Amino acid sequence: MPSAAPGGGKSSHRREAVARAALMRMCEAGDQVMGRLVEAQGAVDAFDRIRLHELPSEFVDEEMARARKQRRTFDAAKLISAWTNRLDSADPLTDLRIGEEQGGRLVVPGDVEWPTQLDDLETGQPLGLWLHGSADLRFSCLRSVGVVGARAATPYGTHVATEIAAGLSSAGWGVVSGGAYGIDGAAHRGALAGATPTVAVLACGADVCYPSGHQDLFAAIRKSGLIVSECPPGVRPTRARFLVRNRLIAALSRGTLVVEAALRSGALNTAAHALALKRHLGAVPGPITSLNSAGCHRLIRDAKATCVTSCEEMIDLVGVLGEEAAVEQGGPVVPHDVLSPNTRLVLDAVPARRGAGPATIATTAGVDLPTALSSLGSLAAAGYVERVPQGWRLRHTRNTRHSPSSSASG
Amino acid sequence: MPSAAPGGGKSSHRREAVARAALMRMCEAGDQVMGRLVEAQGAVDAFDRIRLHELPSEFVDEEMARARKQRRTFDAAKLISAWTNRLDSADPLTDLRIGEEQGGRLVVPGDVEWPTQLDDLETGQPLGLWLHGSADLRFSCLRSVGVVGARAATPYGTHVATEIAAGLSSAGWGVVSGGAYGIDGAAHRGALAGATPTVAVLACGADVCYPSGHQDLFAAIRKSGLIVSECPPGVRPTRARFLVRNRLIAALSRGTLVVEAALRSGALNTAAHALALKRHLGAVPGPITSLNSAGCHRLIRDAKATCVTSCEEMIDLVGVLGEEAAVEQGGPVVPHDVLSPNTRLVLDAVPARRGAGPATIATTAGVDLPTALSSLGSLAAAGYVERVPQGWRLRHTRNTRHSPSSSASG
Repeated sequence: MPSAAPGGGKSSHRREAVARAALMRMCEAGDQVMGRLVEAQGAVDAFDRIRLHELPSEFVDEEMARARKQRRTFDAAKLISAWTNRLDSADPLTDLRIGEEQGGRLVVPGDVEWPTQLDDLETGQPLGLWLHGSADLRFSCLRSVGVVGARAATPYGTHVATEIAAGLSSAGWGVVSGGAYGIDGAAHRGALAGATPTVAVLACGADVCYPSGHQDLFAAIRKSGLIVSECPPGVRPTRARFLVRNRLIAALSRGTLVVEAALRSGALNTAAHALALKRHLGAVPGPITSLNSAGCHRLIRDAKATCVTSCEEMIDLVGVLGEEAAVEQGGPVVPHDVLSPNTRLVLDAVPARRGAGPATIATTAGVDLPTALSSLGSLAAAGYVERVPQGWRLRHTRNTRHSPSSSASG
Repeated sequence: MPSAAPGGGKSSHRREAVARAALMRMCEAGDQVMGRLVEAQGAVDAFDRIRLHELPSEFVDEEMARARKQRRTFDAAKLISAWTNRLDSADPLTDLRIGEEQGGRLVVPGDVEWPTQLDDLETGQPLGLWLHGSADLRFSCLRSVGVVGARAATPYGTHVATEIAAGLSSAGWGVVSGGAYGIDGAAHRGALAGATPTVAVLACGADVCYPSGHQDLFAAIRKSGLIVSECPPGVRPTRARFLVRNRLIAALSRGTLVVEAALRSGALNTAAHALALKRHLGAVPGPITSLNSAGCHRLIRDAKATCVTSCEEMIDLVGVLGEEAAVEQGGPVVPHDVLSPNTRLVLDAVPARRGAGPATIATTAGVDLPTALSSLGSLAAAGYVERVPQGWRLRHTRNTRHSPSSSASG
């Protein structure tokens, strides 16, 4: 179950989650009309009004004016029918129950785990996100890079995606990708070799294994990272859902790296979202004889993307100068008081000098191994801990050793 | 023998050529002190004064002041001794005679064939250039691109250099390079497949075959293009001469394309000259796993070079918009009245509709085949003629056919 929203009781949060789960069944992901209705009325009221077929008249007037401007038609009754027709065949309470039974959870705006960078999507932001996996979404995306590219990748492309993603993950940068064959899969695999959680954002339900050949990969991602989707459980992918999903990869991460892309690749759609969201954009060059690099070269030529040839160069691009220096010196980039209770337990169990293995840390902290692993990934991303040959230890500042209790002000 | 300098008689031009041939024996190519002396006094007077060990006192004073500023010593007597010592073992008249016997020629500033873009080198411009080959230097470089890169090129690099150079040459763009193994050789070979003369600028005498494996290549270049050097006949290449030579490749061409370069490649030296001379700079991307592309990627990352993946993109970079359009429409970029007498004869022999082969054109024009070939290359570069399956024909303007006599205003 999602943790309580700040300022709201547990029951009000539950009402919000149920309403959003229902709305997510009623409209397609990224539905801007729904986004504007929820922004205007709140999710709970929007849900009630749709069920009663009573949209606020000023909202309907505004949508009709907007439609006229955009030279399209807007039929409020038809829209509500389409939404409610879908609701009839869905059950948000069952979604929530089944999701949780399968180890999933719905996070909604206001949750501690909600990544606030999604606000940049404005009325196109997801109504909620279904998560499968043990990592914390907000932490995992705080210092993350989208690594995307062609499904029909070349051996060069998959090699490069794996190497760069492994380097990013080892340096404490999360890798966000789409879980597809080719570059996406290589990026997730590379990231799994490092210490930082990797996040797969799917265009289908988080419980649906698409592509089917990625069952083992998704299992590995759930173990230390996250599978994320704005589609309700069981929803199958469609072409439109892939395109809508791409905005989430761009919005969740600090910047996107296109590893391989033909001139009409879907990865260029993610790149366009990254630019529209004013995120950083990098592209990996390749042989000019490879059609799979032509999209990358065009991005570089048009000065839309920076030419990136290593994970260090990508970190240069997305890193905030002072923050990188702080992490270098062992200073955490996330205040201690926003760490989750489990993460604090794990942090307190990490030794200061000699590293300890995750199993030892889990035992000391009194949590299970997956929790310890995902907390360690989050703590590494946040600059609290570092990997050493023996396992994990606290990061040291330049002059003084970092002490978790000294920064525990909250 | 060089053609007469404008405004000077044949004998005064001969004196200038002899003086410059002598000065080129006395100093190393690119000697800035010599450059300043010749700029101040003229070549003939500079030569006389050095022979008499009598440099102008104001020149010596200026050089001493300059040396003090740069914290180096300047000893005029020592310098003159060094220069005259070298003169003792050289004979400019013999240089000129032997050069011409071997089919070479010395061109000096003021000659019709002198490429005035070398003025951009200021006091670092060559005192003269020894040419071997039948093409016209000024025409060949008027619309030309420097194509440079690693000696130890990869198969990818040589493939790309060949393809792009062939494309440039077919589109009427000359290829200037350094005649070395690797990218240089591939660029010349590709250019030879096209119609436009290619120019090899050597770091040794134009009569010296270095590298020795390029004997056949140099023979082919002489036939339709040019071997160029500022070193007197017989001079062997040194590391310093390679670096000094690089400025000529950059200065002669409209822009330089780096095809493959490691991070400490000599090609980056040529690239730096191109930037210093405000020429265009392109770099070809390649696999990030190839050390031979690392220099190209750095140039692109640092926004010093444009990412270039085809000959069309290089032409976009170096072409002048109006001029390209003029050439597209068949309008020549060089006035008819500056064409050499032989080139005019060849132009008049080119048919308007159906193309004719070079041998036919040579017979009609009453010139030998090499002259016809080099003239056709120059005329193609200047936008007068174009290659068609049957051979060569006049370029047509959009609405009216180009008539050589109608533009013969001079």
